[in-house]
Amino acid sequence: MTYNVDVKVMPLKDLLDPQGKAVLGGLANLGMTAVSDVRIGKHINLQVEASSAEEARAIAEEAGKKLLANQVMEYFEITVG
Amino acid sequence: MTYNVDVKVMPLKDLLDPQGKAVLGGLANLGMTAVSDVRIGKHINLQVEASSAEEARAIAEEAGKKLLANQVMEYFEITVG
Repeated sequence: MTYNVDVKVMPLKDLLDPQGKAVLGGLANLGMTAVSDVRIGKHINLQVEASSAEEARAIAEEAGKKLLANQVMEYFEITVG
Repeated sequence: MTYNVDVKVMPLKDLLDPQGKAVLGGLANLGMTAVSDVRIGKHINLQVEASSAEEARAIAEEAGKKLLANQVMEYFEITVG
């Protein structure tokens, strides 16, 4: 069966996010001052062939650790849909 | 009140996603052949000052249209948490 798995990769909370700061400045320039903070990461959608949702999650976890996220600077969260 | 709003920006379904194809190739090189497709977009977390969840969503919608997504090539989805 094919599982639709989403992996969210975000910069660690304690690290600066220059891309987010740039977007925050851009929103302020557009007059959108209601936005007080922006953080930007990656959203990765995987189609995973697996026999169970648990197996699909384990495969995504391995992909996250080996390739998708740099765990020195980023964390990731997996949603199996 | 501050709302935690997530905006997922993904390449349109009909468009090629070369970054996703590169990651798919990388996973195959690591022996992870259970992954049959990869699409990569952005995950943007906004802290929005608003009086209601509806207002926070409207602000994020405006930010998405004006700055976060290029609607010629991307679509976005908003989750107010």
